[in-house]
Amino acid sequence: MPVLVMKFGGTSVATLDRIRRAAKRVGREVANGYDVIVIVSAMAGKTNELVGWVEETATFFDAREYDAVVSSGEQVTAGLMALTLQEMEIPARSWQGWQVPLKTSSAHSAARIEEIPTDNIQQKFDEGMRVAVIAGFQGLSPEGRITTLGRGGSDTTAVAFAAAFGAERCDIYTDVDGVYTTDPRISGKARKLEKIAFEEMLELASLGAKVLQTRSVELAMRYNVRLRVLSSFEDNNENAGTLVCAEEDIVESNVVAGVAYSRDEAKMTLISVADRPGIAAAIFGPLAEAGVNVDMIVQNISEEGRTDMTFSCPTDQVSRAERAMEEAKEKGDINFHDLVADTDVAKVSVVGIGMRSHAGVAAQMFRALKDENINIKVITTSEIKISVLIDRKYMELAVQALHDEFGLDRAA
Amino acid sequence: MPVLVMKFGGTSVATLDRIRRAAKRVGREVANGYDVIVIVSAMAGKTNELVGWVEETATFFDAREYDAVVSSGEQVTAGLMALTLQEMEIPARSWQGWQVPLKTSSAHSAARIEEIPTDNIQQKFDEGMRVAVIAGFQGLSPEGRITTLGRGGSDTTAVAFAAAFGAERCDIYTDVDGVYTTDPRISGKARKLEKIAFEEMLELASLGAKVLQTRSVELAMRYNVRLRVLSSFEDNNENAGTLVCAEEDIVESNVVAGVAYSRDEAKMTLISVADRPGIAAAIFGPLAEAGVNVDMIVQNISEEGRTDMTFSCPTDQVSRAERAMEEAKEKGDINFHDLVADTDVAKVSVVGIGMRSHAGVAAQMFRALKDENINIKVITTSEIKISVLIDRKYMELAVQALHDEFGLDRAA
Repeated sequence: MPVLVMKFGGTSVATLDRIRRAAKRVGREVANGYDVIVIVSAMAGKTNELVGWVEETATFFDAREYDAVVSSGEQVTAGLMALTLQEMEIPARSWQGWQVPLKTSSAHSAARIEEIPTDNIQQKFDEGMRVAVIAGFQGLSPEGRITTLGRGGSDTTAVAFAAAFGAERCDIYTDVDGVYTTDPRISGKARKLEKIAFEEMLELASLGAKVLQTRSVELAMRYNVRLRVLSSFEDNNENAGTLVCAEEDIVESNVVAGVAYSRDEAKMTLISVADRPGIAAAIFGPLAEAGVNVDMIVQNISEEGRTDMTFSCPTDQVSRAERAMEEAKEKGDINFHDLVADTDVAKVSVVGIGMRSHAGVAAQMFRALKDENINIKVITTSEIKISVLIDRKYMELAVQALHDEFGLDRAA
Repeated sequence: MPVLVMKFGGTSVATLDRIRRAAKRVGREVANGYDVIVIVSAMAGKTNELVGWVEETATFFDAREYDAVVSSGEQVTAGLMALTLQEMEIPARSWQGWQVPLKTSSAHSAARIEEIPTDNIQQKFDEGMRVAVIAGFQGLSPEGRITTLGRGGSDTTAVAFAAAFGAERCDIYTDVDGVYTTDPRISGKARKLEKIAFEEMLELASLGAKVLQTRSVELAMRYNVRLRVLSSFEDNNENAGTLVCAEEDIVESNVVAGVAYSRDEAKMTLISVADRPGIAAAIFGPLAEAGVNVDMIVQNISEEGRTDMTFSCPTDQVSRAERAMEEAKEKGDINFHDLVADTDVAKVSVVGIGMRSHAGVAAQMFRALKDENINIKVITTSEIKISVLIDRKYMELAVQALHDEFGLDRAA
């Protein structure tokens, strides 16, 4: 029988009643003829409670013990989901990460999935079991200890199972009903997308649209797993939610798929840097070593052998970046007059695979912002994305203007 | 290094603060030069919460899923205890049942321990680890699924580990400070025993003194594990608590060690049973098959080929016993006039290994009850125990009278 993977997040299994509702969805897919692999998160709030206990117990904690404690949340939901399905007379059983076993690296609390053997579960399907319920977010290290995959790891678990079993689709049930052209809280014209390409979703995820975890989208792209995001709280027909899929599966699309934003970006400017070959390496080497995630970089035109160098990084890494730069200056590796941090900025981006074959998107974007008198501080582009840093107070205005400009309120 | 097993029950690890207090006790034993194996229960209330969820989810539940859900409670405590010890700079790590692996039968929710391999943990001790924290109450079935040992299973886990590691002693930390000559709530003269023999403890446990679980005492007796019961809530010196040990280790003792009671016993009388060879088998066979735990049995003197047969069983099995007897009557296996159930009774027992070498204890007991005008309804005796069934309203009076009669307020 074809295999379907269904993943239910914490809010979708927050109570016994919601677990029952999720089980009914599973039951419908079983009736549709699928063998179903269900991935469950911990009941909403449970993981935070467990993490809180660990943090209250120890300042610098042993991540192996952290994982043993925190993974118990998914274990409970998996058992309860299996019991609920059995109560509906659907043959089901639960598997914890170590029982599959979902083999991971030893990087506790942020382990990478290395292998998912399928024979054990496949044998049960062959014997008539219809649903395998898997505790998400967890696996087994080579040393035989429980690992967790880090926050959002249940999405990644779901995609990895879909890849391992060659599932027809991986449905991610969550508290939103799909991926939107932009944040509906910012633009009332935001429209749910029927389909979006992996590459676009990856750019949107990393830009702060918190629907899917970046790693899960990367994995889906690598193994070409058709990923559907849909709501646990609505009745879904066949075209519900948003399908994240390969570019080839998208016949018609707008040039721009969505407008994303992020408030958590800071603009850092090194003023009057001595400009010489290798200066970029001298600056960004120490920043990388200090764990600063530099996103955008702009270098001004050099004047009399000195230049200004501007970059952006997450707001919470500003002090780390400042320390790294001061140290490099003390060591004599770089020489600059001043370092100015501006945290009152926002990043706004347009994303779309259509840009590849469509010239002039950048020009159109800049013109739309100019028409609103919004000053652009920094620009970066990739093949399918254009991002600008602007004053934070103009963020909502910019998002709305760009949404209108690229006609995102209308389907292609 | 010598090994010590320390077990902490649910109330002893109910909060992070109590876990810290328990960890301090462990730390003291480490400082005393022991390698310590700590067995933990779930935080008080957690197991009930998990069981409640399972019962609310399914009427007839799959015990394998029940075990997966319920065992998560101990898993959390084990991780938190290991973290707490590490925070005190004591080398420690946690093991869940399946990691040891504590191998059990497949009888989910009531599994029997079959084997505890020691090499894995011993190797860590050899490498410098000082405390192994074990999630109690759980193990691994031959099918690779989590089993639980049933309520009180953490005591049994502790004793089994003590036996496997040849531990010097198994300390059971609980919310009482030892075993008493009788229930202190009934007699103000109740005295804590310094030592008690396994056999006596077994009789007391099965008679309703809820300090230790019967199975754990049986196991301790079989493997001669010195078992100490003591309080988590008091400062304990070396002679704290009560040591449950082999008879040989008790030099001086009273003839009677304790007076126990049970309110949960019902008296059942089959009136006017046709008396013939094999009638006892015809009655007690069906009762055993129906799962009725018959305790005391009395047969009246036969008159004209008919007799009255009285037995006792737990109050909550009365209707089951009645059904079994009615069915046997319908089938023609037995013939009786009426079955009368009296649930207004109580069982009072005196227990002591000294009875073996001391005649006249029964006579002394009956006289003491007669002096208080307490009528005895049924009597049974074993080598080290005499039990009587009396009207429930006299129960406390009987316990106090017997406690005085056998001088239990004074040490031997």
